Order: sequence, then structure tokens, then C-alpha cells
Amino acid sequence: MNKYWSDLAKRLVPYVPGEQPRDQKYIKLNTNENPYPPSPNVLAAIREAAQDELRLYPDPTCKELRQIAAGYYGLQESQIFVGNGSDEILSFAFAAFFNPGEPILFPDITYSFYEVYANFYGLESIRVPLDEHFHILLEPFLQANGGIILPNPNAPTAIEAPLDRIRSILEQNRERAVIIDEAYIDFGGKSAVSLIADYPNLLVVHTLSKSRSLAGLRVGIAMGSEELIEGLERVKNSFNSYTLDRLALAGAIASFHDEPYFQEMRYRVIQVRDKTVGQLRQFGCTVLDSKANFVYVSHPDISAKTMQSQLRAQGILVRHFMMPRTEHFLRVSIGTEEEMEQFVEAYEVILKQMIGSTP
Amino acid sequence: MNKYWSDLAKRLVPYVPGEQPRDQKYIKLNTNENPYPPSPNVLAAIREAAQDELRLYPDPTCKELRQIAAGYYGLQESQIFVGNGSDEILSFAFAAFFNPGEPILFPDITYSFYEVYANFYGLESIRVPLDEHFHILLEPFLQANGGIILPNPNAPTAIEAPLDRIRSILEQNRERAVIIDEAYIDFGGKSAVSLIADYPNLLVVHTLSKSRSLAGLRVGIAMGSEELIEGLERVKNSFNSYTLDRLALAGAIASFHDEPYFQEMRYRVIQVRDKTVGQLRQFGCTVLDSKANFVYVSHPDISAKTMQSQLRAQGILVRHFMMPRTEHFLRVSIGTEEEMEQFVEAYEVILKQMIGSTP
Repeated sequence: MNKYWSDLAKRLVPYVPGEQPRDQKYIKLNTNENPYPPSPNVLAAIREAAQDELRLYPDPTCKELRQIAAGYYGLQESQIFVGNGSDEILSFAFAAFFNPGEPILFPDITYSFYEVYANFYGLESIRVPLDEHFHILLEPFLQANGGIILPNPNAPTAIEAPLDRIRSILEQNRERAVIIDEAYIDFGGKSAVSLIADYPNLLVVHTLSKSRSLAGLRVGIAMGSEELIEGLERVKNSFNSYTLDRLALAGAIASFHDEPYFQEMRYRVIQVRDKTVGQLRQFGCTVLDSKANFVYVSHPDISAKTMQSQLRAQGILVRHFMMPRTEHFLRVSIGTEEEMEQFVEAYEVILKQMIGSTP
Repeated sequence: MNKYWSDLAKRLVPYVPGEQPRDQKYIKLNTNENPYPPSPNVLAAIREAAQDELRLYPDPTCKELRQIAAGYYGLQESQIFVGNGSDEILSFAFAAFFNPGEPILFPDITYSFYEVYANFYGLESIRVPLDEHFHILLEPFLQANGGIILPNPNAPTAIEAPLDRIRSILEQNRERAVIIDEAYIDFGGKSAVSLIADYPNLLVVHTLSKSRSLAGLRVGIAMGSEELIEGLERVKNSFNSYTLDRLALAGAIASFHDEPYFQEMRYRVIQVRDKTVGQLRQFGCTVLDSKANFVYVSHPDISAKTMQSQLRAQGILVRHFMMPRTEHFLRVSIGTEEEMEQFVEAYEVILKQMIGSTP
């Protein structure tokens, strides 16, 4: 029954977010959250903001947060846009920069929300194949297009594209907006923010959800030329003038003020990740080189789907995408050192049970 | 310079929100905020939620808030949708229920964001004239249409349409979604929520911004048949899966748990409003009957624009919409009793200065 739905609502194929169990009995390695808490200064700033002024609308221009982010990234305030998580920003960007009838390009294995946005806005898309090692190639991004979106590092593969490849893509597509979705950049990748001065067609999108442990706060940041930022503002102000509440603004501002905590926590995640990758490879796993807070892993002797359900039976949630090539892999978010020890142990036990031995 | 903008971004005419001065020197009667603080229980719940779990995504289904709202309004959880303010919900609703090529209807004097949404989604609209007393008539809503949106009470007029007129509009448009935007309903109006059981085409939209003093928290609620709610969910999950952060969810839930505070605060606003209306009428003002937390006022001898700038010089912000008919009126949000005394006093002084006397 969908008598009252618009044609748009009928044709939508919504995104399905990773499971968020309401109980706490699982080790949650399925939605790429940070295992470490946010900065205590962030929590203090939010508590401080929980006061009578909540009766007032937030600043619709988010000026203070944009100023601080601008200083942090070495940009002008007019080059910064903030939104309700990077997902909202990406949606606005699809509306602001891409046209129906001019196909946009993104990798064939990538964040599945891109296809959902394209569908929402009635855009055509061409899924550009990764190479056999899951790397992003330059050549397919030289075909005629109406814009490009790329995550770097890519998800769910965790592989980073070298910055000179990003630069080449920008250089060869100067007439089109190119969006680099850097949700995971803080875990060891090289940001394209340094290219903004050279490429007015470049929009870089960050989030506070991953490296700043604030998935529950919903804050994303976009950076680019004034022209691109103004385009995003136009879309936002045609949709919802106040997308960031006063608490999210206060928390986000405090996060940028606590650089030592940020550095320590992202470093910890990187260390635990690299240790986990080494352990999994000792089991004979294929683990793609990760510059993200997750690893992409497969084993030659046990299907990813089986491994996922076996892990779940052990109280560990990981994510599996049932599509060609990705079906062989599990995406495993990096938890705390203790959680990853439990994960590796469980993985080993399951391997032994299912195939009789490990190397 | 807008080389990278989409055709959509180029054609947008964004909404302009009321001024949010960053200093505190003004009496802010310009954005219909509640002058009283949120419930202390709401603030406590937010402080409680400002903890390590902010590293985790919020519940994308917002189940607990929807359950509590369902109980509060006497509906099922499946009849409740929540979003990042009622503005976001309205935008989703335009996408979910209205089709290009099938003109939607709304009053010619109404919330100016409706036209912005229509433009954003490429929808045609017909602006239905209010009568000479700014009342919503039934007859123009009987013409062929692709859906209807009405605020009740209307903004910026503050006038309530009687519930039997709403019912007639629903009855005569059973094939189309009819959205009743009840942002101001708690200040004395009769809600159409009671009609949901009879009309699967009815979507009622509420906000916590006004009567619950939470404009800074960004929480709105939509209520209707399961079919309509599912349509909204589809749109949301094609746009941004996590529109409400953990703090907004915690605060909103606590608000529904503190009924006595809610009742007391809305009653106070109503009392101050009714007193203000009486005083303004004594000055010879036309003040439309208000069931909202603002009044719509004009004076025969002084232009609204002049009065607005004179009030601003006295440190009082009010809102003025420069369009036919509305140009003669100021929209004045109801402040605290003390603020409204200052407003009335300033209004009287300006009247005396400008026209030499008051009655």
C-alpha cells in the first residue's frame, strides 16, 4: 500500500545502516565507530551548553565552528561548510553540483550511499571498476562525466589512493566538481585539503564521527572553494536552515580545541589496526592495506558469510556486503586493543573448527 | 561565479531565517522562540547523555523517542516519525508525497519555507488566497491538486482554522496527502491528531522548538498513517540515516516525561500573549486573533517597516515580511511578561513620537 507516495518515494532504494543493537552484549566492529571515548573536554562543553539557551535557535551560519575549522585546516571561513554528519553534506553536494542527464562517476566498490543519493536526485551514475587489487585507477576517471565522487581511503576496502592520483583526477576534470570523501583520512592517509588552493572544483568532506569519536553527535565538515561552499549553503537553506543543534556545535568546537587528545586516539587506533592486520595475515587471510579504522579481510578456506555468522555467535558483529568481489570479504572495524584480541582469538577458534587447522 | 553549481542549485531561492544576533543585547521577539527555559529534567537528561557513548551512532530508528511520542499522542509507534526539526520533516514530506506536474496547494500568506521546498523538489504550487480576515477558506482547497500543506495555526497570521474545516479539507481530498503543520498548536489550538484514525491521507507535524522551548535542540515529530510514515522513512534513509543525535534524542524523550512543566510553560505564554493583545488593541492596533506564541499586529497610522526599525533602535527585534498584505503587519513573538511590558512600553513611546498621541 503506497497510494500517497510520490513517484520519487516509490523509486527510492534506501540505504541500510549497519546494525545498532540496543543491548550492550556485542563487541561492535560493524559500523566503523571509534572504540575510544570522545575527549573529556568535548563532554564538558556539551554539559555546559545544556542550559536555558537551548530555547533559542542555534546560529544557522555555524560561524564559530566554521572559524575554528578554518583555522585548523588553514583555510578561510568562507571555504568551510558544516552539516549534520558527512552523509547530510554528501546529499547536499549531490544536489548542489550534479545534474540529471550528466552521469557521475564513482568506484564500483565504494560507500553504498552514493548510489542512493544518485537515485534520490534522479542522477545517472557510472560505476568505475577498481583494478584487481582494489585500487582506484586514473584512466576511467578521464571519460566524459558530470562530476566525480571518491572516498579516500575507499570504503569498504580501506585502501588509500595516492594524493598524486587524486591530483591527476582533479587536473583532468577541471570543469566538474570532484568530491573527495575523507571520512577515514585521519587514520594515516594524506588529505586532499592541501589541493584546495589549486582546484576550485575540489570539495573535501570530513566527519567527526570516526577519528574524533563523535558518531553520536552528527557533525561533518566540507572544505573547498567559496563557490562550492556557497552552492552547499544554497541547498541547505532550501532544505533546513538549522541542521546543527547547539550541543553538536559546542561539542564540535571543543573537539578542535583538544588536539593532543585527537592525536593520541587516532594513533592508538592505527597501532591496534596494524597489529590486527599482522595477526590476520598469519592466519592466511588476505587483508587489504588499510589507512582507515577498519580492515577488509577474507580467508581462502572459509566464506565471509559463514565467518560473519560464526563471529556473531561469539558476540562479535562485523559487516558483510553481498556483492560481486565484496562477498568474499568482511569489513572489521578496529576496536580497542582488548576487543581486537578477542576478535583475533575468536577468528582463530572459528578457523580451527571450520577447516581443522591454522598455519 | 557559479560554474560548478547544478541547474538545481542555480534555480534555488533559499529561505532566509530570522536574525540570530550573537550578542545578547536584544529582546528577541523575531523568531518565535519560547521565552522560558526548557524543563530542568531535559537539561539533566542531556548532561547525562554527554558521555562516552557519543562515540557510537545514535539509534537510526529513534525507537525510544517514537515509543514515548506514540504513547503521548495515543498512536502506534509505526505512526510516528521524528526528524531534525519540523523543517527537515516538511522537506522530507514534500519529497515523499508530492509529484512534479501536480500542483500542491497552500495559503498565499503562510510559512515561506513551503515555496522554497516546492522549488527545491521542482514542484508546482498554487497559492490559495486567504479571505479578507486572513482566514483559511474551504472552497479553494476543493480544486484539483497534487497535495495540500497548511499550517494551523497559520504563520505569520497566528489564526487558527477550526478543526471541522480541516476535516472537510481532508474529506474532500482523500486521494492526496494533506499535511497539517502544527508547529504552534500547543498555544491554544485544537490538534488534528484526533483525525488521524479517520484519514490515512493526513500527516500532522509538530515541533519541540516552540512549546517545549527546544529550538536549539532540533527535534520535530510527524504523525499519520503507517503508509505515510513509511514514505517519510524511505526518504530519510535515502538522505541521511542518522538525523537525530544522541543528545537531541535524550532531551526530547525527557521533555515528554515532564508533562507538568510543559503545561505550565505553555499556559504562561498564552497568558502573556492574551494580555499583550489587549494592550496593543488599546493603542488602536489591529491584532489578529492568536492561537500561537506570537501576534500579528498593524497600526493604521504607522508603517510596519518604520515601527520595526524604531523598535530595533530600542533594542527589540520583531519580524516583518515585505509582501502584499503582510507588509502592513509585524510578527511579534511572545516573550516573558517583563519583556512584553518593555515591548508594549516601547511601542507606545514610538507611537507617541511618530504620530503625536495614543488614544
